[in-house]
Amino acid sequence: MALVFKSVFDDPVAWTKRLQEQVPGLEVRVWPDVGRVEDVEYVLAWKPEPGDLKRYPNLKVILSLAAGVDHIFADPHLPKGVPVCRIVDPDLTAQMSEYAIYGVLHYHRRMPGYVEAQKQRKWTKLGRGDTANTSVGVMGIGQIGADTAKKLAALGFQVHGWSRTSKTVPGITCHHGEAGLKPFMAACQYLVCVLPLTDATKGILNKKTLAMLPKGAYVINMARGLHVVDADMIAALDSGHLAGAMLDVFFPEPLPADHPYWTHPKVIVTPHIAGDPNPDTAAQQVGENIKRTRAGKPLINEVNPDAAY
Amino acid sequence: MALVFKSVFDDPVAWTKRLQEQVPGLEVRVWPDVGRVEDVEYVLAWKPEPGDLKRYPNLKVILSLAAGVDHIFADPHLPKGVPVCRIVDPDLTAQMSEYAIYGVLHYHRRMPGYVEAQKQRKWTKLGRGDTANTSVGVMGIGQIGADTAKKLAALGFQVHGWSRTSKTVPGITCHHGEAGLKPFMAACQYLVCVLPLTDATKGILNKKTLAMLPKGAYVINMARGLHVVDADMIAALDSGHLAGAMLDVFFPEPLPADHPYWTHPKVIVTPHIAGDPNPDTAAQQVGENIKRTRAGKPLINEVNPDAAY
Repeated sequence: MALVFKSVFDDPVAWTKRLQEQVPGLEVRVWPDVGRVEDVEYVLAWKPEPGDLKRYPNLKVILSLAAGVDHIFADPHLPKGVPVCRIVDPDLTAQMSEYAIYGVLHYHRRMPGYVEAQKQRKWTKLGRGDTANTSVGVMGIGQIGADTAKKLAALGFQVHGWSRTSKTVPGITCHHGEAGLKPFMAACQYLVCVLPLTDATKGILNKKTLAMLPKGAYVINMARGLHVVDADMIAALDSGHLAGAMLDVFFPEPLPADHPYWTHPKVIVTPHIAGDPNPDTAAQQVGENIKRTRAGKPLINEVNPDAAY
Repeated sequence: MALVFKSVFDDPVAWTKRLQEQVPGLEVRVWPDVGRVEDVEYVLAWKPEPGDLKRYPNLKVILSLAAGVDHIFADPHLPKGVPVCRIVDPDLTAQMSEYAIYGVLHYHRRMPGYVEAQKQRKWTKLGRGDTANTSVGVMGIGQIGADTAKKLAALGFQVHGWSRTSKTVPGITCHHGEAGLKPFMAACQYLVCVLPLTDATKGILNKKTLAMLPKGAYVINMARGLHVVDADMIAALDSGHLAGAMLDVFFPEPLPADHPYWTHPKVIVTPHIAGDPNPDTAAQQVGENIKRTRAGKPLINEVNPDAAY
């Protein structure tokens, strides 16, 4: 009847407290002190080691400590038939939208140039993008992407969205599928990637697709590092085709100290902080899934294992 | 029947084109080539020299090339009885809101720390503000301030507003007057100043009022330099009471090269770019006031000369 908490990035004390408020009496074991593996029915995890989840013979639900589940499905030994749930939390969603809005405004308002000008004590107006005539594309328009898209539209940007399957978001020009990719990319002065990482989206930002963006475009990646072919991204920045990139996610993480992104003059590196699951708001749904499991009810935020997102 | 265009910051070609689209046949004279002063009925100006507007004996309307009119009323020789109009333009408003949102998110998401960490190739998460429990105060809740406040509230911040007279903005906690200043300031983790500059607001950000802010607060000034007592601002930053300031406006402008703001580690300097009147959108209302003057109709966006905003 225990839950194992497995993350080196999230706070086990805060999560334990919030989970026990939701499910009184829940035993929370913090990895690596997992105790008797037979007791473990739930694992709440971020990037479990391959094979780790297989250790628990009575595992009933795998709870991703993130909106994404790629870090779970990356495990070749993932136990079959155990449902996987993700976090769909308005707080997490709002954090991601903040990151995207910040990134777009940073470039749109020419802040890199003003930072340099300040160093030189230069009072020089650099112009600005004209918001109503500036297009932002959001790749991936699920819960997070749709929120990002709507908030950017509320600021006056022309917003496009792209998803694998056809979707509709009010106020957003939606494109989808392989056929929709080129017109979508061609419309993006700013590209925000918030796709789930699956076999279909791995490496989606590559030489061919980056070339579809208009010259001078900016890329903001807050999804997963493996969406990007790093060598292609760097080549597109170096050639001047891309004007800049704000990257929050990498493969591997932490980004190695000798990776060229760290020192590239056109790249902003942040250490996977766009969205940080907040136990104060997200523990409720994790607790709900534990209660639903106990009661034999259908889970919430369960992932389709075939689509893997 | 001529209009004089007087600004060294705005583009006379773009403005002339747009104004003549609005008022066909309008003669636009670009300062300093003002020609026969008797012909001049309209002046569209940003920071006219003191005494300049007095030169035109047949002046019918003074049109501020900005949302603010302090630069007009600063002229001790301002001709009496000539109406003064300002620009109230949704495009300009949206630009200002973008600046404020950018500034708040920059600090809220710990971007100064990530910029430093990148220089050192350090992968270190710095935490983040919890948006729902973070308060932003907007000083001045007219057209621009109300838009800024509403957009920040839409991002999930707790938003307070302060104005000289009582106002109501849905979703915003509004304070007003001398009595409301202290509770307002005490509520602000971020303070955004967008007040008009008048005798009543000059120096409003001073030792006493800055001390009312909670420790660790940030100030974003996108109103006028003279709202701030610079020595008090620097002292509050140096003492650690304020965590940072993003300043777009100064007195004088351009900010002198030896001013301590340029090199202060806690100050971001931008060269008065938060809002830039856009002739594509703002020329319409300027033309409208010329047409109204000719037709003897009441003006739009006219300023009360007693309040001077």
